Amino acid sequence: MKITIKQYDDPKKIRAVIRKGQWKKPTAGLAPGYAQANLVILPQRYAFDFLLFCQRNPKPCPLLEVLEPGQFATSFLSSAADVRTDLPLYNIYRKGTLQKVVPGIKELWQDDFVTFLIGCSYSFEEALIRAGIPVRHIEEGRNVPMYITSIPCNAAGIFKGTLVVSMRPMPADRIAPAVRITSRYSAVHGGPLHIGDPSKIGIRDIKRPDFGEAVTIRKDEVPLFWACGVTPQIAVMNARPDICIAHAPGHMFITDILNEELADQ
Amino acid sequence: MKITIKQYDDPKKIRAVIRKGQWKKPTAGLAPGYAQANLVILPQRYAFDFLLFCQRNPKPCPLLEVLEPGQFATSFLSSAADVRTDLPLYNIYRKGTLQKVVPGIKELWQDDFVTFLIGCSYSFEEALIRAGIPVRHIEEGRNVPMYITSIPCNAAGIFKGTLVVSMRPMPADRIAPAVRITSRYSAVHGGPLHIGDPSKIGIRDIKRPDFGEAVTIRKDEVPLFWACGVTPQIAVMNARPDICIAHAPGHMFITDILNEELADQ
Repeated sequence: MKITIKQYDDPKKIRAVIRKGQWKKPTAGLAPGYAQANLVILPQRYAFDFLLFCQRNPKPCPLLEVLEPGQFATSFLSSAADVRTDLPLYNIYRKGTLQKVVPGIKELWQDDFVTFLIGCSYSFEEALIRAGIPVRHIEEGRNVPMYITSIPCNAAGIFKGTLVVSMRPMPADRIAPAVRITSRYSAVHGGPLHIGDPSKIGIRDIKRPDFGEAVTIRKDEVPLFWACGVTPQIAVMNARPDICIAHAPGHMFITDILNEELADQ
Repeated sequence: MKITIKQYDDPKKIRAVIRKGQWKKPTAGLAPGYAQANLVILPQRYAFDFLLFCQRNPKPCPLLEVLEPGQFATSFLSSAADVRTDLPLYNIYRKGTLQKVVPGIKELWQDDFVTFLIGCSYSFEEALIRAGIPVRHIEEGRNVPMYITSIPCNAAGIFKGTLVVSMRPMPADRIAPAVRITSRYSAVHGGPLHIGDPSKIGIRDIKRPDFGEAVTIRKDEVPLFWACGVTPQIAVMNARPDICIAHAPGHMFITDILNEELADQ
């Protein structure tokens, strides 16, 4: 009997279906109202450097929860989740190279693995839409366009790299409200890092994102760029640790925390 | 020739006098406008657990800067400071017990020491005074009263303990503005954790603080309690690491960062 997910199922029900390997698609739009998280798992010998990288780069790497070495059950984001099984697809990196994409990591699990869960811009997109500010890639049914920039991150131990940003185009009269609304969500990337000319941050061709899909930018629109949770995956690729496990882009961890709980109080 | 500090000297000049061992007194009131920081130094084998403790307890442990293992020069808080010499007095803990108080730690320095600099409530006190809200212990020329509470911190690895709070009494009509103003400073403890009845958070006698000095609470006043940067020292005492170095209470690291730079933007 095939179980399917309905968009408005609660996070626990959706994670149960994902856990059974019956949903291997992106999680965008599922369980509206609930926060989703980026995942990075590293052996303990790299964990201090990576935690320090997040501390020094809070805009691209806003930590929502870090688990003790060997622990795979979350406690803050959900009291009933297993990071080894509850995401639809995982990227396995070895020595900084993407080796394969798998639907679960139980067989790969090591006692010294440390799990990092990092905020995701899905949270503030919901706030934008609620305020009547359309988000282009959602309108066009695409994955958000993401670009590797020339803006250096603050290095920490073996981890360094440049920022990855996501882009959402806005007409001039929506820039200020988009800044105001997203700035309230400092736990999920906060306000934009750059507004306007993409070449100023090292983006050569706005029509060719490095990750995700291109979206339409109309003649009267300005591109707004936000720090993106893919940034740590670039830092991991540069550092070439023996192993690193991350979510496959778009295939996030669905939490039991409401987006509103992540807004600045 | 004895060099003395004038209150309005800039941080660099004050640190130079401290570095020469010519100022062993508290730093409260020095270099107004500039942030001061709590200090914790631990060997690298404890550093991941301690960094995780700070990540899980951001109110008492708001990290301003963490240095790489062995590094003693700050970069974010000052480009010209040495954490081994630039605080007036240091507490040396061995196996969780305060062993001695010294004016410098150059002889004790180890290549695996990791330095944590943590926000301090001096920053928001200045904002309170600027808004016409008097701070009692400053009026009375005392050290702020601090209390060990029954509120548990979120444990991380070997580090656990209860929260330490600082207390400032306010008349009823100043509670709301005091909350509003201090809440803007999330990098330096933010808004109060508790307002009113001290027994609700495990404080038996408000007249007998665990650290600092008692202050007058007038008949019409309510005590307000803020998370305090002494909290990690309690967690360190509980964890009993081989060695830990911290600032002596009140004898802080004076940074080149303005308090205003630490306010939420």
